[in-house]
Amino acid sequence: MTGNDSGRLYGVGTGPGDPELLTLKAVRALGEADVLAHFAKRGNNGNARKIIEAHLRPDMIELPLLYPVTTEIDKDHDGYKSAIAEFYAQSADAVEQHLAAGRTVAVLSEGDPLFYGSYMHLHVRLAHRFPTEVIPGVTAMSGCWSATGMPIVQGDDVLSVLPGTMAEAELTRRLADTDAAVIMKVGRNLPKIRRALEASGKLAQAVYVERGTMDNGASMRLADKPDDAAPYFALVLVPGWEGRP
Amino acid sequence: MTGNDSGRLYGVGTGPGDPELLTLKAVRALGEADVLAHFAKRGNNGNARKIIEAHLRPDMIELPLLYPVTTEIDKDHDGYKSAIAEFYAQSADAVEQHLAAGRTVAVLSEGDPLFYGSYMHLHVRLAHRFPTEVIPGVTAMSGCWSATGMPIVQGDDVLSVLPGTMAEAELTRRLADTDAAVIMKVGRNLPKIRRALEASGKLAQAVYVERGTMDNGASMRLADKPDDAAPYFALVLVPGWEGRP
Repeated sequence: MTGNDSGRLYGVGTGPGDPELLTLKAVRALGEADVLAHFAKRGNNGNARKIIEAHLRPDMIELPLLYPVTTEIDKDHDGYKSAIAEFYAQSADAVEQHLAAGRTVAVLSEGDPLFYGSYMHLHVRLAHRFPTEVIPGVTAMSGCWSATGMPIVQGDDVLSVLPGTMAEAELTRRLADTDAAVIMKVGRNLPKIRRALEASGKLAQAVYVERGTMDNGASMRLADKPDDAAPYFALVLVPGWEGRP
Repeated sequence: MTGNDSGRLYGVGTGPGDPELLTLKAVRALGEADVLAHFAKRGNNGNARKIIEAHLRPDMIELPLLYPVTTEIDKDHDGYKSAIAEFYAQSADAVEQHLAAGRTVAVLSEGDPLFYGSYMHLHVRLAHRFPTEVIPGVTAMSGCWSATGMPIVQGDDVLSVLPGTMAEAELTRRLADTDAAVIMKVGRNLPKIRRALEASGKLAQAVYVERGTMDNGASMRLADKPDDAAPYFALVLVPGWEGRP
């Protein structure tokens, strides 16, 4: 319990996977937290909780926020939007009850909380009503290009972060129109991503990275990858960085 | 000294400015380092060294790498490219001598080492010859959107990272063609950036951030900023994130 009337909300970026890539600030916030909230799929504690496992305390209250649907379902699917909106509203209510009771709540977010993270849905519902701090984290993309030792951008390079879910023509156009690219949400989109890279003349430079900062991580030139099997959270990196001094 | 024949090279991301945004891994690498190298302008120790000040030890050898020219000079200027290439070659030589003598060298890099960082110029010259590890860091842009509490991208948003040095028509076109944007290298480019945002219909959402994770940091809607004075390392953020559930 904090000494204040209401508790404090922390959005805690846990970084890309390696527990050593937590920031000192994230560790401090976890030390202060009465309640540990994290988004997860049913039957799975989620990567973020695994990353911070060494900082769990027996007296922490755990608040798992279990997605009603997985992120692989088409976001335009009938019922998806209302189900997920209802879920975020309920999750915010659950966190709010702890904050109102004076408890400090740390909401875990893999990578960086405001960069494609679920935490933002709690943030917009709660940050104007409770003392709130967002603790940025190392993104998955930084973890991946660092693990492969590949400089991604320098100087005046343009970087485009593109979802692999995009239509093929659109993906091709954007790849042709950028110096460097990070393609997210790879999974079953890999054959399309490969075709778009080929059509935009960038297949030769593209690097495929799977579980970048995990012990079982792997990376290779996408052109050398013999199959199209890929987890949803794999990334494809296209370095900019021509004209290097 | 390490026990090996040659020392180890660490590219250490120091994060955006707040010393608490160092990762546990960065702190460990600094603890192992015999030599601390950092890029700086003459007469200025540089932000990266200031961020890690609490981790300096009296027995560390300091190796400042002093830019011969500032980053504000046009990169296409006569003599710039050769001067900077010569500087990186000399810097790599200086680091190499320590590595060859068995010393572990930590090269500091503000933000993330392979994301617009000078470290990459040492990396490409040395990483194939010495044991090397790149320790990713929290980027300046993550630090800025977290400090302002502004979700930058969600779902299938496209993010474009754009240098403010770009020609106005090109900047306008790219701003109109993205969901979210981060504009770097603001400084004297701010009037042009403002016009490009206005022309692309995105001025109303744009947020100006100065020294995002410093004690004296400030942010405001760009439309509310009364003047065009801005440091080089200020950022302009344009959030994506419409259709939120």
